[in-house]
Amino acid sequence: MSYSLQLDIPGANAVLRRAFPGRDQAYFPSVTLVEPGRVHVVLPYHESTLRPGQLISGPTLMGHADTAAYVLILAHIGDQLMAVTSSLVMNFLRGARPGELHAQAEFLRLGRRNAVCDVKLWTESPDRLAAQATVTYAIP
Amino acid sequence: MSYSLQLDIPGANAVLRRAFPGRDQAYFPSVTLVEPGRVHVVLPYHESTLRPGQLISGPTLMGHADTAAYVLILAHIGDQLMAVTSSLVMNFLRGARPGELHAQAEFLRLGRRNAVCDVKLWTESPDRLAAQATVTYAIP
Amino acid sequence: MSYSLQLDIPGANAVLRRAFPGRDQAYFPSVTLVEPGRVHVVLPYHESTLRPGQLISGPTLMGHADTAAYVLILAHIGDQLMAVTSSLVMNFLRGARPGELHAQAEFLRLGRRNAVCDVKLWTESPDRLAAQATVTYAIP
Amino acid sequence: MSYSLQLDIPGANAVLRRAFPGRDQAYFPSVTLVEPGRVHVVLPYHESTLRPGQLISGPTLMGHADTAAYVLILAHIGDQLMAVTSSLVMNFLRGARPGELHAQAEFLRLGRRNAVCDVKLWTESPDRLAAQATVTYAIP
Repeated sequence: MSYSLQLDIPGANAVLRRAFPGRDQAYFPSVTLVEPGRVHVVLPYHESTLRPGQLISGPTLMGHADTAAYVLILAHIGDQLMAVTSSLVMNFLRGARPGELHAQAEFLRLGRRNAVCDVKLWTESPDRLAAQATVTYAIP
Repeated sequence: MSYSLQLDIPGANAVLRRAFPGRDQAYFPSVTLVEPGRVHVVLPYHESTLRPGQLISGPTLMGHADTAAYVLILAHIGDQLMAVTSSLVMNFLRGARPGELHAQAEFLRLGRRNAVCDVKLWTESPDRLAAQATVTYAIP
Repeated sequence: MSYSLQLDIPGANAVLRRAFPGRDQAYFPSVTLVEPGRVHVVLPYHESTLRPGQLISGPTLMGHADTAAYVLILAHIGDQLMAVTSSLVMNFLRGARPGELHAQAEFLRLGRRNAVCDVKLWTESPDRLAAQATVTYAIP
Repeated sequence: MSYSLQLDIPGANAVLRRAFPGRDQAYFPSVTLVEPGRVHVVLPYHESTLRPGQLISGPTLMGHADTAAYVLILAHIGDQLMAVTSSLVMNFLRGARPGELHAQAEFLRLGRRNAVCDVKLWTESPDRLAAQATVTYAIP
């Protein structure tokens, strides 16, 4: 399957900033890679994302997985359409130590009506995944 | 299957407050029902939980589903043990209009090593579910 | 949410038999309840469905969950349309002892483009679930 | 994360044959690759696995995903222990055309008490996935 891009890295970052206008700019996620079928999005570390036990909280991981899938989709279908999450399956694999939260999102399938994305998340190293998510979006 | 309780409503609320000491007390979730195999937990409305489109955000829904499952488990195994989410499957069913966010959590299974919980979420009415989650916890 | 039915029990059984013309009639699933938003489908016991350990196999449970969701959807949208499973999430809760396999399927949501169904499965008793599934269908 | 193997390809095939003694040998799955953290398992084509529409059926895909995850785990923990599927999440991505069914299974995590496996399935080409599954096993 070949994928063609509608947005580059600055374009993807601009879309993200427009989508979340009220979010704190200091801790805003940053798109660092956009290539056919794949993106990489980094969330800066902030201690407010920790849960008891000094690990990054589940809602932070789930929210970032969803953001990465959203970026992946918009990078391929462009900014004009509105995509909505229909399901998110999250497997928590090991505690996410404090640090920048990395998400790599890839298409399992991009169809006309929906997209299924595989998202891997880590702080320490891509060899020590903190979580894996499968995120499905409906595309209107 | 019969379930026996270790905590009542005040006990469950106390556990929740100890688990999240830093969270804003004005918008803290409140346990309103504890019965064998089932709990009900309400999250007060706050506009910071909205996403574009004036709907309650996905991370808010996922976080509240996880909280309700946690309360359900601790109500049955007591406060002494530490339970950790191992997976969360979320189906977004319709947009969650602004309002108090209700979660009803029930056991699908409570075993010695893990628990599987069904969680239904809504703001408008239990007949109009915003989301359904299946949350699995590992019990050490 | 109110649901209206397009098929009754004989109609649902007829649809099922047309959908699986080659399947052995002696062990064919039987629709025993059709009501708004809910169906009950029973799979007769056959020892070929066992796996090592004398328990009903995972593929049998997953296949029957999918069948029950399919019956639920067709009972509400009628026989004319073709629905396709887009995802199936299965939680295995305890070993399914040999016996008739019961599935109760209910809508979490029936939309125009897709349906999300909760399916509970058991052989011994509905209080001792063998498995729970969430099945999503795309509706063309 | 580094993984060490307990079984080679012949050993993995032998375990599989012992686990399913009654299954038809002509259409038995075959392990074709075993390496640290990954296996490849092929199911020969047989028309009894088709569903209406001349596509490989959902239960066949789900059963094969489960088999591949089982092989992956036993290849790493050895034959002496009994592992049981605790959940299986299946995303159906496109219709699986008739042909040999390939499954590639990789660890997302192998822990002492459980394992989470990513499984990709296809008949035509690995670039045209028919389905993706996340399979979790409990390890006693």
